[in-house]
Amino acid sequence: MAAQDLRQLVDTNDIPALQQWLVQHAPHEIADEIGRADPLRGVLLFRLLDKDRALEVFEELDPSDQHKILSGLRDHAFRDVVEAMDPDDRARLLGEAPAKFARHVLGGLSPHERTMTAALLGYPDGSVGRYMSPETVAIRRHLTAGEALRVVRERGADAETIYTLPVIDDERRFVGTLSLRDLVLSSPDRPITELVDTTALRVQATDQAEGAARLMQEANLLDLPVVDSEDRVLGLLTIDDAVEVIEAADTEDIARQSAATPWSGHYMSAGVAQLARSRALWLLLLIAAATLTVNVLQFFEATLEQVTALALFIPLLVGTGGNAGAQAATATVRALAVGEVRTRDLFHVAWRESRVGLLLGAMLGAVGLVMGTILVDFPVAVTVALSLVLICGWAATIGATMPLLAKRLGIDPAVISAPLVTTLVDATGLVIYFLIAHAVLPL
Amino acid sequence: MAAQDLRQLVDTNDIPALQQWLVQHAPHEIADEIGRADPLRGVLLFRLLDKDRALEVFEELDPSDQHKILSGLRDHAFRDVVEAMDPDDRARLLGEAPAKFARHVLGGLSPHERTMTAALLGYPDGSVGRYMSPETVAIRRHLTAGEALRVVRERGADAETIYTLPVIDDERRFVGTLSLRDLVLSSPDRPITELVDTTALRVQATDQAEGAARLMQEANLLDLPVVDSEDRVLGLLTIDDAVEVIEAADTEDIARQSAATPWSGHYMSAGVAQLARSRALWLLLLIAAATLTVNVLQFFEATLEQVTALALFIPLLVGTGGNAGAQAATATVRALAVGEVRTRDLFHVAWRESRVGLLLGAMLGAVGLVMGTILVDFPVAVTVALSLVLICGWAATIGATMPLLAKRLGIDPAVISAPLVTTLVDATGLVIYFLIAHAVLPL
Repeated sequence: MAAQDLRQLVDTNDIPALQQWLVQHAPHEIADEIGRADPLRGVLLFRLLDKDRALEVFEELDPSDQHKILSGLRDHAFRDVVEAMDPDDRARLLGEAPAKFARHVLGGLSPHERTMTAALLGYPDGSVGRYMSPETVAIRRHLTAGEALRVVRERGADAETIYTLPVIDDERRFVGTLSLRDLVLSSPDRPITELVDTTALRVQATDQAEGAARLMQEANLLDLPVVDSEDRVLGLLTIDDAVEVIEAADTEDIARQSAATPWSGHYMSAGVAQLARSRALWLLLLIAAATLTVNVLQFFEATLEQVTALALFIPLLVGTGGNAGAQAATATVRALAVGEVRTRDLFHVAWRESRVGLLLGAMLGAVGLVMGTILVDFPVAVTVALSLVLICGWAATIGATMPLLAKRLGIDPAVISAPLVTTLVDATGLVIYFLIAHAVLPL
Repeated sequence: MAAQDLRQLVDTNDIPALQQWLVQHAPHEIADEIGRADPLRGVLLFRLLDKDRALEVFEELDPSDQHKILSGLRDHAFRDVVEAMDPDDRARLLGEAPAKFARHVLGGLSPHERTMTAALLGYPDGSVGRYMSPETVAIRRHLTAGEALRVVRERGADAETIYTLPVIDDERRFVGTLSLRDLVLSSPDRPITELVDTTALRVQATDQAEGAARLMQEANLLDLPVVDSEDRVLGLLTIDDAVEVIEAADTEDIARQSAATPWSGHYMSAGVAQLARSRALWLLLLIAAATLTVNVLQFFEATLEQVTALALFIPLLVGTGGNAGAQAATATVRALAVGEVRTRDLFHVAWRESRVGLLLGAMLGAVGLVMGTILVDFPVAVTVALSLVLICGWAATIGATMPLLAKRLGIDPAVISAPLVTTLVDATGLVIYFLIAHAVLPL
C-alpha cells in the first residue's frame, strides 16, 4: 500500500483497515510511515498499535520522530480529533498506553492538561490514571542506599515528590516502595533490598480514584504507587490529590443526599439555569412519586369528609415520618461511604433502626397525645399518637435499609436521598394513619 | 508555711491559697517542695505555676524530679483528679503549658493518650493541640544543609515525620520550614537561611483543628507547624491527622444536616439508646415546630370542609416545598463548609436561589396543573400549580439564606438541616396554598 493510500485511511478514520495494515507490516516499516506523516496523522497511527508493538515501533523511530509522537499525544489538535470520534472508534484508539509513554506524555503538564491527556491514554473517568503524578524517581532494586540517594539527588528536582520512591526490577515492574526517610536514616552501604517495603500497597491506573484515595486515608499513606496491568510503575497518587478526590466525592454524596444531581463546579460560579438543571430531574421524579399520596387520600376521601380534623395532622405526621427516615438514611449512607457499614450488615441495621424508630416514635407519640387532646379531642389524639409510633418505626427501617439495598444492587447508595425516603414514607405513612383511624374512631 | 500545711492545701484543692503560696516563694523553694511531694501532688503544684515561673522551677529540679513531673503529667491518676475538679478550678490549673513541657509530655504517646493528655495541657476540645505530633526535628537556623542533615540523621528515628523540619531561632521561636526534599537536593555547604521557607504558614495550638486542616488541604501542605502563643514550636499537624479531622467534621456536618446530634463513635458500635438519643432532641423540636401546620390548617378548617379536595394535595405540596428547600440548604451548607461561599454573599445567594426556585416551581406547576386536572378538576389544579411556583421559590430562598444567616449569627450553619428547613417551609407553604385557594376558588 502506498503512503498516499495510508494517508487516506487515516483521514477517513477507517480504523479496521488501518489496524489490518499495521498487523501486516514490520515495526521498521511502520516507523518509516510514521516518520513521514505529519504529527497528527503519525500520532493517530501510533495509538492504534497494541502495547508491545507500540514499544517496538517507538524504538525504531528517530529521536525527532519519537519527540513528535510524545508531544503529539499532548496536542490540542489530537484531542479535538479524538473527541470528535464516535465512542467505539475512540475506545479502539485509546487502548491502555505503554507505561513508558504514559509517563513521558503526562509529565510536566498542568493538572488540568494532565486530566485531559490521561483520558486520551485510555484511563477512564474517575480512575486513578486521571489524578496520578507521573514525575517520580524510581529506584532499581540492586542499588545500595548511597547509590539510591545519588539517584534521588540527580533526578529529584523534576519529580512531583521524592518522599515515596517506587522500587522496580529490571523490567520496570513494581517491587515495593522505599521512603526517603528510611533512605536518609540508613547507612549508605545498605542494600535497597533490605530497606524496600515489599508489602506496600499499589493500585492500577484504571482503578477507581475514590477507592484508592480512601485506602490512602485508612493506611495513612503519603503516596500510593500506580501501575499498569503488567505491574509497571506509571506514577504515584499523592495525598494532596487524594484529599481532593475525597472532598469531591463527599460533595457529590451530599448533593445526591439532597436529591440534586452533582456537578463539579464552584457553587458561586454556577448559573441559575445550571443550578435548576441539577435539581429539576429529582424534583420531577419526587413529585411523580408524591402523586401516590394524592391517591391514598382520594381512597380515604370519605373518611376525611366525615372527620375533617384528621386532615389537620397530615403535614405533621408526614413531616415527622420524613424526618425520622431522613436521619436514618443519612446515617447509613455516610457509614457506607466511610466504610463503617457493609451490605452484609443489612439485617443487623434493619433490626437496630426499627427499634430506634419505635423508641423515638413512642416519645413523639406521647407528645402527640397531649397536643392532639388539647387541639382537637382524645380519640383523634390517640390516632395521631399510635400513627407516630408506627410511622417512625417504619420510616427509620426503610430509611436505613434502602441505601444498603441500593448498594447491594450496584446503585450508588447516596442516591437514596432524604427527600426520596421522605416521599416514599409519606404515602405509606398516610395508609398507616387512616387504617389506625378506622380502628380507633367510630367510622 | 510548713510542708505539712502545703500538702493539706493541695489535698483540699485550695487553689487560690496554693497560688498565693507559689507567688510568695522563690523558684528553688518551690522546686524543693515539689521534690519532696509524691508525684501526684508535685504535678498539681507544678501545673499551677505560670508559664515563665514553671520553666524557672523546672530548671531547679533534680533530673529525677523533672522526670517525675513529666511522667506525672501523663499519669492516669492525675487525669482522674483533674476530671473530678470543677471547670473553674480546672481552667485555672490548666493554663497554657510551656512549649518545652508540652513537647516532652506529649511525645511517645498513642494517639488516644495524646488527645487525653493534650486536654490536660490546656488545649481546648477540637483545637490543633489535640491532634498535633510533638515528635519533630527542629533545625536551628545558623546551620548549613550538611549539618542539618546530620541532625536529621541523629534524631530523625524518633520523629513522627522528617519531611517538614521546623526551623527555629536560639529561643526556639519559629522562623520557617525546611523540607527534607530541599535539604537532600541541596549542596551540603549551603546555609539553612537560604533554604528555609520563611513564608510558611503556622497555626497556634489553641486554633480550631478543622480550620487548620482545611488550610492544609487548600495549600497542599504535608505538615503544618504548630506554635504556642509565644511562637515557640510545639509540633506539627500532619496530613494524615488533618484528613481525619476533615472526615470527622464532614461526618458531623452530614449528621447535623439530617437533624441528628453528631457523636464521635463508629456507626455499628452505637447502641439503640445512643442512636435514639442523637436524634430525639431534634425530632422533638421539629414536631413542636410542626404544630404550626396544625394551627394553620385549623385556621382554614372551614375552607377544608367546603372543598375536601384541597386536602388531597397537602402532602404533595409540603413535600415538594420541603425538597426544594432541602436542596438549596444542602448546597449552601456544603459551599460554606468548603469555603466556596461567604456570609457576605447573602444577597447574591438569595437573589439567585429565588430565581432557581421559581424556575423549578414553574416546571413543577405545569406538572401539577395536568395532574390536578386529571385527578380532581381545573380550578383546584390551578390552585395547586400556582402554589407550587410560589412555594418552591420561597423554599429555595429560605433554604439557601438560613445557613448564611446562621453563620452570620455565629451558629454552625450545618444546624440548618434539611428537616428544619422542611418543617419551617411546611407551615408557610400551607398559608400560601390556602390564600391562593381563596383567590382562585369560589369560596
